[in-house]
Amino acid sequence: MTAICLVGIGKIAVDQHVPAIGGSADWELAATVSRAGSVDGVQSFTDFDQMLSERPDIPVISLCLPPVPRYDYAAKAIAAGRHVMLEKPPGATLAEVYALADMAHAAGVSLYTTWHSRMAKGVAPAKAWLADKTVTGVHICWKEDVRRWHPGQDWVFAPGGMGVFDPGSNALSIITEILPMPIHLRSAELFFPENRDTPIAAHMQWTQNVTGDFDWRQEGPQSWDITVETTTGTLSLHDGGARLLIDGNEVAAGADREYPALYDRMAELVKTNASEVDLSPMLHVADALTLGKRNVVAAFHF
Amino acid sequence: MTAICLVGIGKIAVDQHVPAIGGSADWELAATVSRAGSVDGVQSFTDFDQMLSERPDIPVISLCLPPVPRYDYAAKAIAAGRHVMLEKPPGATLAEVYALADMAHAAGVSLYTTWHSRMAKGVAPAKAWLADKTVTGVHICWKEDVRRWHPGQDWVFAPGGMGVFDPGSNALSIITEILPMPIHLRSAELFFPENRDTPIAAHMQWTQNVTGDFDWRQEGPQSWDITVETTTGTLSLHDGGARLLIDGNEVAAGADREYPALYDRMAELVKTNASEVDLSPMLHVADALTLGKRNVVAAFHF
Repeated sequence: MTAICLVGIGKIAVDQHVPAIGGSADWELAATVSRAGSVDGVQSFTDFDQMLSERPDIPVISLCLPPVPRYDYAAKAIAAGRHVMLEKPPGATLAEVYALADMAHAAGVSLYTTWHSRMAKGVAPAKAWLADKTVTGVHICWKEDVRRWHPGQDWVFAPGGMGVFDPGSNALSIITEILPMPIHLRSAELFFPENRDTPIAAHMQWTQNVTGDFDWRQEGPQSWDITVETTTGTLSLHDGGARLLIDGNEVAAGADREYPALYDRMAELVKTNASEVDLSPMLHVADALTLGKRNVVAAFHF
Repeated sequence: MTAICLVGIGKIAVDQHVPAIGGSADWELAATVSRAGSVDGVQSFTDFDQMLSERPDIPVISLCLPPVPRYDYAAKAIAAGRHVMLEKPPGATLAEVYALADMAHAAGVSLYTTWHSRMAKGVAPAKAWLADKTVTGVHICWKEDVRRWHPGQDWVFAPGGMGVFDPGSNALSIITEILPMPIHLRSAELFFPENRDTPIAAHMQWTQNVTGDFDWRQEGPQSWDITVETTTGTLSLHDGGARLLIDGNEVAAGADREYPALYDRMAELVKTNASEVDLSPMLHVADALTLGKRNVVAAFHF
């Protein structure tokens, strides 16, 4: 087993990363770094530099803190010769992730920009089915309740927090993986709460008749659906990619293994001394914030 | 001489492209496409498809219309087997320019994302001088009067028009060319007129102590200055890169040859069947619009 350090013990770490590492034969959770959080039975640090200097035996660092502070941790980890795994989105800017990729390459360590939704059960079979199809239209409906998934997390509405594109990048990570053709944004309507710096909702229109509705104000049932029309049938993904239907028939479903699959992939990257850096979902977010029309909506309070 | 077609006969075409082509031994201006503008003595079209079908003898298309409509023209030109030259910024989104690059590569034609300020007289010697220096700080001061340079051009304030980053990308194209180290944005303050969709001013803070002030409300003298402090001296570029001073001594100056140099470069790319696609200035703009804090300022009217 390889020792790994988890940095940023917040909701996503507790819900997903800790169980995924705990259930893996590849990894041993050897330390955590967090201002407040910790994991029972695991050495905890509050200072990252101290962890790097006291635990040279830990070769891999997984960063699940918010995107804005993430670069500094990743740069320090790479400079200390550690392999690095980044929660999505991999950074607050595109330029900083390209810089990390160059640094990792120069240092000979692995860098992995994870996109957990790509590991959802339906995604690989959806990609395989679409590979030889002609797509005539795509619709994304990605509507969830920010209070439920990011309770009190003001950083999602601060500059760089990306707002509704934080969950929205999950949908973008799926379509950039499964569609057999490239797309680019034609227009977007963005909805900013009057007291916040990032959008709480967005309507998007890409080329190739690809559209998306993203909303963070959805109470009750949550929607994470993608429908792809082709000249020879209709494919749909539900539950964030976990369920796949083709022409209404259930093709794939199953227990959530998204995060365990990310850690499997990281083990493989480290073993083969490789990196995986894909910024395409984040590129579409940057394009939306560049090209989108800004509308102001009601103030949002947690 | 190679026949070239100029698309979008607006201010920048008349001020720069037409004289640059006219003064070149490589190029013959064989046609124009524009809704309203034309060039005396040159066949003029209003319909791009018609020009493509009636003038198969014109192998090169130079696009100087605004960024939002540019992709469709570029894609059609490439599909018709023509080489393409793009005014800056090369598109309204990053994804569309990456798509054009892939299309050009597949079609075996040249694509050139021009950045005219990189051809300013002081830029190449600045880059050469900085190559072995340790930079301790950079300041960009880019302040001009939008009414003077974009009179009545509402598209600069429409979504995708990029606002003050339209001229600002000139400064970004210079620093991404001359600095010997990569940078990425740390924070930005953006100032949006209450009646417009793009910023009229911005304060930027990158890594490596690189800062920038961009403003489109500057009346009187115009400022296009970049100062680079190093451990062994100070370099400064003025007049948009045309003048270079090192430790206060004038090193380079001269007549503006930016656009003629772009057309020289395009001739070379076509001759060698090569492309030049560099999106780094646009990447920094996308990062600013992703990470920047939005402030609302007074309405702007031309």
